[in-house]
Amino acid sequence: MSAPVSGPGEARRRFRAGLRTPTAGWAPGYAQANLIAVPREYAYDMLLFGQRNPKPCPIIDVTDAGSPHTALAPGADLRTDLPAYRVWRDGELVDEPDEITGYWTGDLVAFLIGCSFTFEAPLVAAGIEVRHLTAGSNVPMYRTNRPCRPAGRLSGPMVVSMRPIAADRVADAVRISGRFPAVHGAPVHVGEPAALGIGDLSTPDFGEPVDVRDGEVPVFWACGVTPQAAIMASRLPFAITHAPGHMFVTDVPDHTYAV
Amino acid sequence: MSAPVSGPGEARRRFRAGLRTPTAGWAPGYAQANLIAVPREYAYDMLLFGQRNPKPCPIIDVTDAGSPHTALAPGADLRTDLPAYRVWRDGELVDEPDEITGYWTGDLVAFLIGCSFTFEAPLVAAGIEVRHLTAGSNVPMYRTNRPCRPAGRLSGPMVVSMRPIAADRVADAVRISGRFPAVHGAPVHVGEPAALGIGDLSTPDFGEPVDVRDGEVPVFWACGVTPQAAIMASRLPFAITHAPGHMFVTDVPDHTYAV
Repeated sequence: MSAPVSGPGEARRRFRAGLRTPTAGWAPGYAQANLIAVPREYAYDMLLFGQRNPKPCPIIDVTDAGSPHTALAPGADLRTDLPAYRVWRDGELVDEPDEITGYWTGDLVAFLIGCSFTFEAPLVAAGIEVRHLTAGSNVPMYRTNRPCRPAGRLSGPMVVSMRPIAADRVADAVRISGRFPAVHGAPVHVGEPAALGIGDLSTPDFGEPVDVRDGEVPVFWACGVTPQAAIMASRLPFAITHAPGHMFVTDVPDHTYAV
Repeated sequence: MSAPVSGPGEARRRFRAGLRTPTAGWAPGYAQANLIAVPREYAYDMLLFGQRNPKPCPIIDVTDAGSPHTALAPGADLRTDLPAYRVWRDGELVDEPDEITGYWTGDLVAFLIGCSFTFEAPLVAAGIEVRHLTAGSNVPMYRTNRPCRPAGRLSGPMVVSMRPIAADRVADAVRISGRFPAVHGAPVHVGEPAALGIGDLSTPDFGEPVDVRDGEVPVFWACGVTPQAAIMASRLPFAITHAPGHMFVTDVPDHTYAV
C-alpha cells in the first residue's frame, strides 16, 4: 500500500489517475464515506433504509438524480474519484472498475454513508493500536446474523467491521468512537463473535483478516458495507458502490462529526 | 392547562377522548414527536429534507404508506391520539381538527420528528428553569431568516423554539441539550434575536410569548415546526401535521435519545 498523502484533494487526484488502494490512513483528519448509487425508483427505499438503520447506514449526503457532485467535497466527481468501485446487477457483482463514467446515468441517486475510519485517528491519538492501519491492510468486515429493519424493497443483514482492542482499552475505544454517532458511533458488539454468527475471524466476508492477540478482544462496529449486503440479499436490479475499504475521501474534517 | 398525567398511554387516551392542550410537561420521561404526513408522491422529498436539515428535522420514524401506526408507540393511532392537528392544502391552513380520520388515506406517509421537549426534563433536573413550563403555556416559536437546504419540492426557513436562560446557566443548557442530537441537540443561536431575523420576541409566529427577564438570554433551538413552514413556503398540495406544541407522546424513554 502506498504511503498516505496529506490532503483529501491530492488523495482523490491520485485515485482519479488510477491508483487502486484501500483508503484507511489516507488524508488523515478528513472523513471518508461509503458510496451507494441506485436508480431513482429505489432512492426512497435506500433513504428509508438509512433512516431505519442509522448505526450501519448513517447517510451523510444524498445527491440530486444524475449529479455526480456532493456537498461533502465540492470539487470532486463521484464517478472517478474513488480508488475502486463495484457494479451490481440483480444482486450479483458484475464489475469492479476504477471509474464508472460508462455506467453513470441521469437516473442515478448517490448516497454517501459515514465510515468508521473517522474515529480511527482519535483512537490512535489515544494510544489505541488500530491493527489494520499498523498492518497496512484493509479492515476486516463480516456479515452478521442480525437483520436490518427492512425498507420497501431493501432488506439484509448488518455488516460489521472488526478491530482487536487490548482488554484494558476496550472501554476507551467505546467512549471515543461513541463521540461520533454519525459515523457508526460506539461498537454494536464486544467479544463473542459466534453470537453475531461469525464462525471464523480469519475469513472475513470483505477486506483482509488481522491478528487477534492474547489479551485482545475483537470489537465490532456497524459498517457502511451493510447496504451492499442489502443489494445482494434484495437482488436490486442495478447499483454502483465503492469497493469495500476503498472509500470516498471527503473535504469534511473528522471533528465535524464529533458530539 | 390540565395537570399532566403520568404515562404516555394515559396521555394519548385523554387526547383521543377529545382533550385539546399543549403537551409540554405531559408524560414526563417519554419523548414527544412532531407529526407530518404527506402523500406518497412527496415522501422522498420530505425524507430528504430531513436528511439535509437534521437539526430542525430529526426524523425518528417513518410509517409505511397508509399505516397510522408507528414503532415509537405500537398501541397508538396517529389519526386520533394527538390533541390537535392542522390540515394544509396548497400551503394554506384549512382545518385544525381534534382527529383526522376523515382526512386519512392509504396514500399518506407519516413522519415523526424529534422534539426539544425531550431535553426539558434534564434541564429542569439541572436546576434550569424552563419558562413556558413554569407558566403552563405553549413554547414560543419563530420563523428565522435562515433557509433550510432545499430537497426537491420542499424549501423554507428554519423555525426555532426559544427559552430564556439565566446567563450563568447558558453553558449548562448547551451542554445538556447537546447530549440529545436526535431531538434538535444544542442551540443553533444564543442571544441576538435580530441576527436571526426575529424583530420582536413578544410576538412569536407559533405558540405563546414568555417573559425574558433581566440577566436572562434568549436561547434558540431548531424546531420541528420547520416542516410546516416548508409546507407553507412550498405550497405543498396536501399535508397533515400536529398543531404546534400539541405533540405526539411516544412510548420511547427520553434517555433513548441521549448520547
